[in-house]
This record gives sequence, structure tokens and C-alpha cells, in this order.
Amino acid sequence: MIVLDGKALSIKVLDRVKAKVENLSKTPHLAVILVGDDAASKIYVNNKRKAAERVGIKSTVIELDTLISESELLTLINELNSDADVTGILVQLPLPKHIDKNKVVEAISPKKDVDGFTPENVGKLAIGLEPYFYPATPQGIIMLLDEYKIPIEGADVVILGRSNIVGKPMAQMLLKRNATVTTCHSYTKNLEDKIKTADILISAVGKKIVRCKMVRNNSCIIDVGIFRDSNGKLTGDVDFDYMSQSAGYISPVPGGVGPMTIASLMYNASKVY
Amino acid sequence: MIVLDGKALSIKVLDRVKAKVENLSKTPHLAVILVGDDAASKIYVNNKRKAAERVGIKSTVIELDTLISESELLTLINELNSDADVTGILVQLPLPKHIDKNKVVEAISPKKDVDGFTPENVGKLAIGLEPYFYPATPQGIIMLLDEYKIPIEGADVVILGRSNIVGKPMAQMLLKRNATVTTCHSYTKNLEDKIKTADILISAVGKKIVRCKMVRNNSCIIDVGIFRDSNGKLTGDVDFDYMSQSAGYISPVPGGVGPMTIASLMYNASKVY
Repeated sequence: MIVLDGKALSIKVLDRVKAKVENLSKTPHLAVILVGDDAASKIYVNNKRKAAERVGIKSTVIELDTLISESELLTLINELNSDADVTGILVQLPLPKHIDKNKVVEAISPKKDVDGFTPENVGKLAIGLEPYFYPATPQGIIMLLDEYKIPIEGADVVILGRSNIVGKPMAQMLLKRNATVTTCHSYTKNLEDKIKTADILISAVGKKIVRCKMVRNNSCIIDVGIFRDSNGKLTGDVDFDYMSQSAGYISPVPGGVGPMTIASLMYNASKVY
Repeated sequence: MIVLDGKALSIKVLDRVKAKVENLSKTPHLAVILVGDDAASKIYVNNKRKAAERVGIKSTVIELDTLISESELLTLINELNSDADVTGILVQLPLPKHIDKNKVVEAISPKKDVDGFTPENVGKLAIGLEPYFYPATPQGIIMLLDEYKIPIEGADVVILGRSNIVGKPMAQMLLKRNATVTTCHSYTKNLEDKIKTADILISAVGKKIVRCKMVRNNSCIIDVGIFRDSNGKLTGDVDFDYMSQSAGYISPVPGGVGPMTIASLMYNASKVY
């Protein structure tokens, strides 16, 4: 069994991004908008800021009061859209309930949408065109699969979860690479039967769902989930200790998809349109 | 075995659209652009024109020489976009090779994009938002499934084909309705095993691919393919005579998905934004 070392690959990717940024005529500038004071969001934003610094991308974190109105936020995004110095805009989610997340995401210029969440970028991906940006997590997972030369073309891929940030774009990107993709979710019946068919299993559920004997021998398991177990220890969707006896490849939590997501985001933030 | 009578349902849908159009304050106006003189395209355009007439939607067919330049075509679309009288724009595909189809589709205003093919509409569908228009064929198929009360939620759906006009939007729309969706294509291995798992099988391949014993008993088979066999007879992807002994539901060719596509397109063309 081979552990997919996302930590090590993320360092390689960040080094490549750094070298690219050094050769750009214009320094990329990422604007990160953080609304309110959610502790987890603050950590994520800080990690992004530090990663940007590391690769030589200028970043500005704009912290806004949780009571900011939707229209004020939309005005700010429009200002950033027309600010020629700003090359990337990222709104840290979740947003407070009084703000319509979709409206906010739609307001971001597709050419600065480093998360790849705007309808135009999502739509281009869905019809097989090149979006300005691919969503960071699935893009990072593909980098990981490619690094370890795991065949995607013709592979039977089962995705658990259908979120807009992982499951759905992951399905599109793997379909584009000629995988046969099955998307499962809370309404899926006979889940174990489906998991057993997977050459590549991608779990993005957020609870310990992939347990012993569920997965075919020698398959590749990508664990996107990350949460704390009852002992406060960071863990993923997959029973790693058990799986490591039967899986061919497995991405650990932490140290798998997490660091790849950040590296993939920095790869996006280094693109200047 | 129950035959899904798309012909009969299409008449019901068209009657409903007609009643709706009569009550609109503004008559919808569909502009159909036909480039060149492809015989099949002419027939399709004529069918759309006749259907529009039947439901009281004004239509204008704009026939353009096959040698028209891409920029001239884009200029025309921009004029139609800003023409307040025109509420829907449809470019009949395929286009001549010297014209970039994607550029042309992207030029159509999403609010007039009755085919639902622009990146904004595709993107909205992909992230679970309401697009201005759903693509006609998958929308027509959902109407057919709903008419016969075939359960979609939790169903195992296998889609053969991943085109932008059928397979991909079909997957998105069924996922939104909580089906478990597997998308298969030319790179899929062990296709028969996958077909056997389907509660609902949707075949959009364009050749006789679904043959005897492949499908689970009592499943629902939707045949999107339409082509002429060696005897010149119109036929679909599915071996209807054989399947009709084992399937629970089956859509015939002709008289299944075809008329539903036209009715669904007219439903779209009746929407005025």
C-alpha cells in the first residue's frame, strides 16, 4: 500500500508556483474577503495568506463585520473586479445567513474567480471548455493522482458527496479525463455495493463512512473529509488503519488532500488574466 | 410493460404552453438562426417553426449563407440580444467548421438562451441554482418520467453518453432530483455490468447499443438515440422488441423522446425574461 503524500507534493507544487511568479512581469494580488469572526474561517484565511506570502503572491485580507449588508459586500466585490491591481478575489465561506452566498459568488469576475465557483467557470467546466480557474480541491486531487501515475482514463470512479466545491466539479473533471463516474450521496441506496466497484474512491462526506471490507482490494482511496474524532484527533472519512491493509493507494488525513487544496489554490492565484 | 408515450404527452405539454402564451401580455418571439443548407438542420428548424406557430409563439427563421464569417454571425447575435422584441435565440447546430461553435453559443444572452447551452445557464444548473432555461432534451425526459410517476429520488440511473446537450445536463438534473447517477461513455469498461444496475437507463449514443439481457427486469429505459437502420427505418439505441419483454417502462423511437424535446423547447420559448 502506498500513501499518497499530499504534504510532499504540495511543497513541490508551491515551489513551482513560486518560480513561475518570480518570472511574471506583474505580481499577482489575491484579495481575500472574510466576513465575521468564525474561528475556523480565520484559520483558513490565515493559511491562505501565509501560502501566498511563501510563493511571492501579494495578498490582502479584508475583514468585514458580520453585520455588513449584502449590498455593501457586492459593492466591494465590484470595486475589486475593476481594480486592475487585484488579480484574484476569494470570498471565504460560509457567509452570515442574511447574505445570499450565490449572489456574492456570481458577482465575482470570472477572470478573478480563483475558487472557480462562478457560474461562468462552472459552466465552462461542465461543457468541457477551459474555465479560467478549476476549483482548488478537485484540481489538487487530480494533481495527486497524476503524481502517483494512477490511471484515470477508463477507471471506475465512485464519488461520495455532491457539493459544489468537491463532488460535482470532481465528477466533471474526471469525466473530462475519460473516467466512468458514479456520484453517490445521502439518497443513494446500497452504498456498499457501489463503493466496491470503485477503482478510485473519493470520499467527501465529513463523517467516518468508509469502513472495513467496503473497498475493493488494490483500489485508490482519496479521503477529502477532515474533522475531529471524539478524542479531538484530526481524522477523515476513511478507516485508514484498516484500509491500509487492502487498498493500493490511500491519501491520509491530515497530510493528503488538505495541503494539495492550498497548493492548488496558489496555482490558481498565480494566474493573471 | 408500459410504453412511455412521448407523442401523447408532447401534445398535452404543447396545449399547456399554448394556453400560457395566450395569457401573456407580451407574445414570445423566437429567433432561429440557420447557417448553410444542411438538409437535416432544415427539417429540425422547420419543425421548431411549426411547433412555435402551433402554440402562438412568433418565430423568425434567419437563414444565412454557409460562408458567413464568425464575426458577422456574432454581430447578428448581439443585435438579437439587444432587440427587445426577441425573447429567445436559437442557433441550429452544427455550424460550418470555420465558425467556433462555443464562441457563438457564449454570445447568446443567457436570458434568451432557450437551448440552455450558454456557460451561465449550464453553470447555474451545475451548482444547483435555477438556470433561465434547462436544455430541452433532458427537461423533456424528466417530464416523461414524472408523467408516468417513475421514482427518480434514490433511483440508480445509468446514462450512456456524455454530450453537452443530453448526457451531461441529464446527469445534473437527475442528481438534483436525488438520483444516484453513473455516466458511461466510450471509455467505460464492463458496460453491461453497469447497465444491469440501472433502475432507469438513459441511452443517448446513436447506435444499437442496448441489446437483449443487458437490462434488469422491470427497469425503465429511455431511448434518446434516433437514426435509420440498414433498411432505412427510424430506430433507436435500444432493441425495443426484445426489451419490451423484460423492461417495466420503455420509450419508443420514434414517438418517445423526440416529440418531448420539441415540446420542452416550446416550454422554454414561452418563457419571457
